[in-house]
Amino acid sequence: MLNIAMLPSPLDFSTSYLSTSTIVALCVFFGLLCSCIIVGHLLEENRWANESITALLLGLCSGVVVLLVTKFRSTKILIFSEDLFFLYLLPPIIFNAGFQDKKKQFFRNFITILLFGVLGTVISFCLISLGAFLLFTRIGITNLGIKDHLGETVFKSKSCISISLNIIIICPYSDLFVHITCEAIGAILSATDSVCTLQVLSQDETPLLYSIVFGEGVVNDATSIVLFNSVQTLNFSTMNAITALKLLGTFFYLFCTSTALGIIVGLLSAYIIKTLYFGRHSTDREVALMMLMAYLSYMIAELLNLSGILTIFFCGIVMSHYTWHNVTGSSRTTTKHAFATISFIAETFIFLYVGMDAFDVDKWKTSKASIGTSVAVSSTLIALVLIGRAAFVFSIANITNCTKTRESAKIEFRSQFIIWWAGLMRGAVTIALSYNQFSKSEIASTEDSALMITSTIILVLFSTVVFGSITKPLIEAVKLRQSKPAISDSTDNQEDLRLLFLESNCSINQTNHHESQSRRRSSLSLMIRHPTTTVHYFWRKFDDKFMRPVFGGRGFIPAVPGSPPAEEEIS
Amino acid sequence: MLNIAMLPSPLDFSTSYLSTSTIVALCVFFGLLCSCIIVGHLLEENRWANESITALLLGLCSGVVVLLVTKFRSTKILIFSEDLFFLYLLPPIIFNAGFQDKKKQFFRNFITILLFGVLGTVISFCLISLGAFLLFTRIGITNLGIKDHLGETVFKSKSCISISLNIIIICPYSDLFVHITCEAIGAILSATDSVCTLQVLSQDETPLLYSIVFGEGVVNDATSIVLFNSVQTLNFSTMNAITALKLLGTFFYLFCTSTALGIIVGLLSAYIIKTLYFGRHSTDREVALMMLMAYLSYMIAELLNLSGILTIFFCGIVMSHYTWHNVTGSSRTTTKHAFATISFIAETFIFLYVGMDAFDVDKWKTSKASIGTSVAVSSTLIALVLIGRAAFVFSIANITNCTKTRESAKIEFRSQFIIWWAGLMRGAVTIALSYNQFSKSEIASTEDSALMITSTIILVLFSTVVFGSITKPLIEAVKLRQSKPAISDSTDNQEDLRLLFLESNCSINQTNHHESQSRRRSSLSLMIRHPTTTVHYFWRKFDDKFMRPVFGGRGFIPAVPGSPPAEEEIS
Repeated sequence: MLNIAMLPSPLDFSTSYLSTSTIVALCVFFGLLCSCIIVGHLLEENRWANESITALLLGLCSGVVVLLVTKFRSTKILIFSEDLFFLYLLPPIIFNAGFQDKKKQFFRNFITILLFGVLGTVISFCLISLGAFLLFTRIGITNLGIKDHLGETVFKSKSCISISLNIIIICPYSDLFVHITCEAIGAILSATDSVCTLQVLSQDETPLLYSIVFGEGVVNDATSIVLFNSVQTLNFSTMNAITALKLLGTFFYLFCTSTALGIIVGLLSAYIIKTLYFGRHSTDREVALMMLMAYLSYMIAELLNLSGILTIFFCGIVMSHYTWHNVTGSSRTTTKHAFATISFIAETFIFLYVGMDAFDVDKWKTSKASIGTSVAVSSTLIALVLIGRAAFVFSIANITNCTKTRESAKIEFRSQFIIWWAGLMRGAVTIALSYNQFSKSEIASTEDSALMITSTIILVLFSTVVFGSITKPLIEAVKLRQSKPAISDSTDNQEDLRLLFLESNCSINQTNHHESQSRRRSSLSLMIRHPTTTVHYFWRKFDDKFMRPVFGGRGFIPAVPGSPPAEEEIS
Repeated sequence: MLNIAMLPSPLDFSTSYLSTSTIVALCVFFGLLCSCIIVGHLLEENRWANESITALLLGLCSGVVVLLVTKFRSTKILIFSEDLFFLYLLPPIIFNAGFQDKKKQFFRNFITILLFGVLGTVISFCLISLGAFLLFTRIGITNLGIKDHLGETVFKSKSCISISLNIIIICPYSDLFVHITCEAIGAILSATDSVCTLQVLSQDETPLLYSIVFGEGVVNDATSIVLFNSVQTLNFSTMNAITALKLLGTFFYLFCTSTALGIIVGLLSAYIIKTLYFGRHSTDREVALMMLMAYLSYMIAELLNLSGILTIFFCGIVMSHYTWHNVTGSSRTTTKHAFATISFIAETFIFLYVGMDAFDVDKWKTSKASIGTSVAVSSTLIALVLIGRAAFVFSIANITNCTKTRESAKIEFRSQFIIWWAGLMRGAVTIALSYNQFSKSEIASTEDSALMITSTIILVLFSTVVFGSITKPLIEAVKLRQSKPAISDSTDNQEDLRLLFLESNCSINQTNHHESQSRRRSSLSLMIRHPTTTVHYFWRKFDDKFMRPVFGGRGFIPAVPGSPPAEEEIS
């Protein structure tokens, strides 16, 4: 090692290929990622820690080290761009979540998830915006666009909630209106961070909660795009029921097209692999094709301004249902673990970055607010997030409970509490949006926007460390008493299915012509009594009869001779 | 799809997250990659085509389409940076080659590989530089730095070969000397493209040729770094034997440190995984750690100005020998196929890009040379590459043949021919270096440097398509007659080993004190008679006794209960 120093100017000529700063940054990052994995493994048994907190704290420590080494000049050893985040880190995480998702659980709670993702986000957003508006006028942060006369006119001319909805939607896109408003905070903080959810909730331990909170995060994405999109055509000054219906219509259009795109790409991959039968030649080709087509679906969705997250999520679901069964055993093992690994690395990377980014000296210097103000702003924001989420979680959960007849299908209070709590974590998505919003400001003062960014960082750190570490013990404490209903819930469902099969078999056995009408009536009454179970039953029939013969799937592909079976099945 | 057009200005607001051009480029690229895989699969049986030619032609076609769509404005839909190539595409390819490498074959031909990689590159470089110098002065390309007086003084003051060596080494780094010289062509074209080799030679069918040509490409990398490095300290006007020895010393220093770094990182990963026993918890962690540590080794090497390619290659070898045996069965299957898949995607990506880049309108417009001149320059360059490679392949092969006593160990003429032929392909490395060299020129005229780039593109296209497609049938034609010696070669070696074992067992059995001297003498005589086999034998003994108990390896890790065995072993 000492000899290297004797070589002539070792850092001079390396610039020919690669810039030294990039290499240093990559070295540090990959070294830290390795440490995260090792430390995370050692702390596996610890109930308070999880991988994200480890990564965050490690990032914080290395941020301090870099700060000391560079003598308080900078901690920016790698410039974190939104491109990197939205193009390369987010898609594999969401795809893997869809790919490893317990589909039955997800579709059974589909209505609830949709309500949380659409209505919940709007409620939370309105409350947080309103709260922030009241707070900032009191604290004296007046440079966030409130001074701007155009903004002010808008503010005063309408009722508060529709205003905040208006301003927040307009601000990122229209040059006519203020660029920075306190309501932007509402949009940034109302979205559930699906990456964080993956960290604190386990699909195997709490399938119901996981599917609701994570599903909410996925549907969320479409909601925000609709809000951003619609403002360009709709005139909010004439906001009425028709406009609201239009908005809802746009949301469903976007939701359906995004989902359809994901399903089409997934089915296409299944069909290609089944027809050409890649297993004959190469496992690598199958795996490569699955990876590339999944990523392609995300890119096409982004290109068409659909929700890429929804698309790649449904692409993952379809791929695990059809494509995954068409490939060889080794491809199955490889895809399952490779996707999980890539997603795991991306998640760790994100938290590591958030930790390292916390000590962004420039921002802290620019924001001249006292520590008191920073803490006050941050804690108010945290309180707003808590209230905003509580407002919609408990209300929507109770509304859906009213529609359900069976006691076991209802979301009990303990579960509601966990849904509320687990969705409180805010992470990299929040930071990325906050930078996007506040660092490009021209109208607003840099001091106040810097204060916004630092407050967001404090909020993210606090919520990840505190909410993240408490969630696991909290679930354990609740689950001890909840373990029984959770089991009975699943057996309930199986009984339901058995009942359904029996009833429908009965009607099939009675093949008299005039019995067919009664059968139809029986299906209809079943549909009304157990809607989800009935839909699932008919879906299975349709799947077995039409889909699987064309696209392949479990039991519809003959075993490849000589290839080993995959170690375990994705349920 | 039609509805999308009705949505308001769909391309306007997407810029908030991601730039549209990036998304379009990624869509096109991932779509083309998928097509490459499908077309490549369909053409699998075809003996003339291979994946690289498919990707290249598909890239060319899409280049034409983009050209027509943009009305001859640009084909640059994705800016190809050296960073992308050297940081993200090359490392996985080289790592995978080391990981799936047949280690026995590689180490048996180690001396030959070293000779080809070091001496061969220097010979080839001198010949190509000299030829290019003579050619360009005749054709009239005088603006490539030859006009520059400082350059001219250097040119005239020394003998041709040392001049060309001098100029070529100086030009990329020193501001004192000419930036662009015809000799740069020599450096660019003398390096074997290891990515191309992987495409035309099969490790299973022609293990000897594969290991020599690919190994040469890996060692090559260290050679060029040494040449670039040394010029900064050495004064070439007093070029003598001592300087040459110094150069050789620097090469071996670099070679050894790079190799050592790769081995250390590989062993570290084996030790960590063996000690902490990750399999207990997570396959994903094991796979992630292997991926990250491999990549880290490349980055550290680049940081220390060592040869990253050599480092990651040896890291791959060590990982497949130790680490791979310490992980669970599913991790083994996953790593094997995931690394191969990533490498496969990277290779296809590179060739696709080279194809798309061929119609770079700006360069073709800037280079005002007639078609005749372009073709003349390109064909001369191709001839120079042919001659340069022939000069060292046949001479070095014959020299090494002289040192070998056994007939089967010699490289026969047919094999020499294939080694010569298979190393002729030039690919993305050549293009990347050519852009690096000629597009940043300040002294040389842009016309002539554009001519250099277009000539390089023609050369790359021609060599990939023509040499690439002929290699497979050529090997088949030669192999028909060669199949017998190939088999006897491997059995020969096994007999050797058996002989060695017998001899050494004999000496172990005779445990008398004064027999030990004769044993030592017998080892020594064995070493002289069968150096490679003896080294291998002692390495195995050392490996079994010291290395495997510490770092794990085949047979030294108890089977993980409940985990399935990996489908096949890496030999």
